[in-house]
Amino acid sequence: MPIITLTTDFGTADGYVGEVKGILAELAPEAEVVDIAHDIVPGDVDSARLALARFWRRFPPGTVHLVVVDPGVGSSRAAIAVSSDERFLVGPDNGVLSPALVAAGSRVVELPLPTGAAPTFHGRDIFAPAAARLAGGTALELLGMPLPSPVVRRTPEPRRRSDGAIGGEVIAVDRFGNLITNLIAPRGGLVEIAGRVVGPLRRSYSDVEPGALVAVVGSSGLVEVAVRDGSAATLLHTGRGAEVLLRLLAGA
Amino acid sequence: MPIITLTTDFGTADGYVGEVKGILAELAPEAEVVDIAHDIVPGDVDSARLALARFWRRFPPGTVHLVVVDPGVGSSRAAIAVSSDERFLVGPDNGVLSPALVAAGSRVVELPLPTGAAPTFHGRDIFAPAAARLAGGTALELLGMPLPSPVVRRTPEPRRRSDGAIGGEVIAVDRFGNLITNLIAPRGGLVEIAGRVVGPLRRSYSDVEPGALVAVVGSSGLVEVAVRDGSAATLLHTGRGAEVLLRLLAGA
Amino acid sequence: MPIITLTTDFGTADGYVGEVKGILAELAPEAEVVDIAHDIVPGDVDSARLALARFWRRFPPGTVHLVVVDPGVGSSRAAIAVSSDERFLVGPDNGVLSPALVAAGSRVVELPLPTGAAPTFHGRDIFAPAAARLAGGTALELLGMPLPSPVVRRTPEPRRRSDGAIGGEVIAVDRFGNLITNLIAPRGGLVEIAGRVVGPLRRSYSDVEPGALVAVVGSSGLVEVAVRDGSAATLLHTGRGAEVLLRLLAGA
Repeated sequence: MPIITLTTDFGTADGYVGEVKGILAELAPEAEVVDIAHDIVPGDVDSARLALARFWRRFPPGTVHLVVVDPGVGSSRAAIAVSSDERFLVGPDNGVLSPALVAAGSRVVELPLPTGAAPTFHGRDIFAPAAARLAGGTALELLGMPLPSPVVRRTPEPRRRSDGAIGGEVIAVDRFGNLITNLIAPRGGLVEIAGRVVGPLRRSYSDVEPGALVAVVGSSGLVEVAVRDGSAATLLHTGRGAEVLLRLLAGA
Repeated sequence: MPIITLTTDFGTADGYVGEVKGILAELAPEAEVVDIAHDIVPGDVDSARLALARFWRRFPPGTVHLVVVDPGVGSSRAAIAVSSDERFLVGPDNGVLSPALVAAGSRVVELPLPTGAAPTFHGRDIFAPAAARLAGGTALELLGMPLPSPVVRRTPEPRRRSDGAIGGEVIAVDRFGNLITNLIAPRGGLVEIAGRVVGPLRRSYSDVEPGALVAVVGSSGLVEVAVRDGSAATLLHTGRGAEVLLRLLAGA
Repeated sequence: MPIITLTTDFGTADGYVGEVKGILAELAPEAEVVDIAHDIVPGDVDSARLALARFWRRFPPGTVHLVVVDPGVGSSRAAIAVSSDERFLVGPDNGVLSPALVAAGSRVVELPLPTGAAPTFHGRDIFAPAAARLAGGTALELLGMPLPSPVVRRTPEPRRRSDGAIGGEVIAVDRFGNLITNLIAPRGGLVEIAGRVVGPLRRSYSDVEPGALVAVVGSSGLVEVAVRDGSAATLLHTGRGAEVLLRLLAGA
């Protein structure tokens, strides 16, 4: 039974997700529909992209990921379907599918606009039907013409500063108020943010006292700044885009 | 495999939805349970009714829609099950099921109160067991006696005003802050709300500049007022019940 | 098809639940994954415990309940799997699984830490794989060594006061603002909270006028204080921990 996952910014109270699920139940009755999230901040393509990066490869081969965070719906932005690393993805060509697009061997097609599609709800009228067809075994190439240069959005790279520190930034704030940065598995060093020294990298949140700041290598390999039993975002009054420094230790 | 959809105002954190799902897993192990929404504003029957209108017919024949937004639980309001256009619906007799009730050929029965049902949680003790029986193939008429006049709630109709404009109102505000009105597919005209001229009907949100107001015919055929990449509800400080005018163009 | 239920404080927008679901789809492809809640207040072990108490036994025998509210992740707290009354439970040893632990005949094992498990995300790297194994039929005892004394958290007991009243407290506030207390099925009496007499126990919320306070025996057998069509928590400016008195009637 193929899986179709759903990631949207629709919320659920308005019935839009209900419409999408109805379409999927009608067109792909054998598929198993799995909710990932419907509470992405409206229009926040980067949040959806980072969430997708976490989970898309953890599902079995053949899974179809439907991702609709689509502030440009009805504009000239393309609608796309992607085959990448044995999974499929469907969504707008606004960079939200980048984690799969940049994987080696990915293929992309542009989905044609069906007659009568609502210009304000491609999730229902374009993306869900395409996901249903992929789940049903239709080949990607039968869904549309190849799109050579889809939009790719990337997380900014950390930079080496003139004082020797590595300068990164907060790329996401999670539900716990943890500040997730773009700093990757450093060899060790002191983490600074918002003018405060957080300290060296610890193993886990519980390596400091409750209420204290702590820096760890998080579960996706990125450095994050947290507060044990609290919210770093609240304590530091900071969020996405804030500068984070890693000062390497002498000799490290 | 029959589908049972769930639409409630229970939230999920308190475990009430868990109880309902446990009942369904026990009594209808073959059914596929599909979450529509659990974050309807508590007691907001009209929001649930409008959401239901969007999705109930998009699911395949045989689907059972369980809708529990039930501020009158434990009062004398009836509990009902409905057969309409090859789908089934179960919920309180407070108008929340109106989209299916008003369809031609709908049939309604009143569900008896089981012995020991909690007077504060009919979702668990009356509605879920009834939905499970319908999903299992029990005929509607075996669930209760016919109810001749169920409560129907209707969206107010727009009115022609003495100055020639059509006067409607905002009937829902969605997660994006879009103001959804009761104005249906007009021939064209200028939309006004809150003393501001929004302009003529556009094709999609992206037909105006970011931050600008725009009026479109939304995905369910109703006129809506939106802000591109923003919230019309926030920009206009307005919401449900606000008057919306459509001034027909001369010659239209 | 075995059921795996999910109760977490992860939210859904960050993709953590997506990762857990991907693991389950990979390791337990035959299982049916059922969302209970992902919006438990971060780290609120007691809320998750009380929600679990409501639903864990309503699911069929063989169900696996995965409960991850885990402020101590990465510390020395154990990871456990439980067999109780024909159901299984997996989660941290912080008391969140108490409703099943205290049932007669429950058995508990400590899950070993897999090599490479992220110290900040045991939900993904320890609990989900263990749940998948249990759903697949692996015996509890094959998952780890018996843990003789798991952490148990209990709801405080009401006390008889010197003036003859029974003194309890609010143990939870639900989405409707209902104040759920630890007072169990009393024979009758007057309920007082926050210096106000709510009155005798009624059958349901609708036994008083809209906007009025009402005390009922709720759907899990506990006394709760509510406001019809409103929120008792808001009206009384009170919440968890507030004292609630039950004054028995003379002769009762």
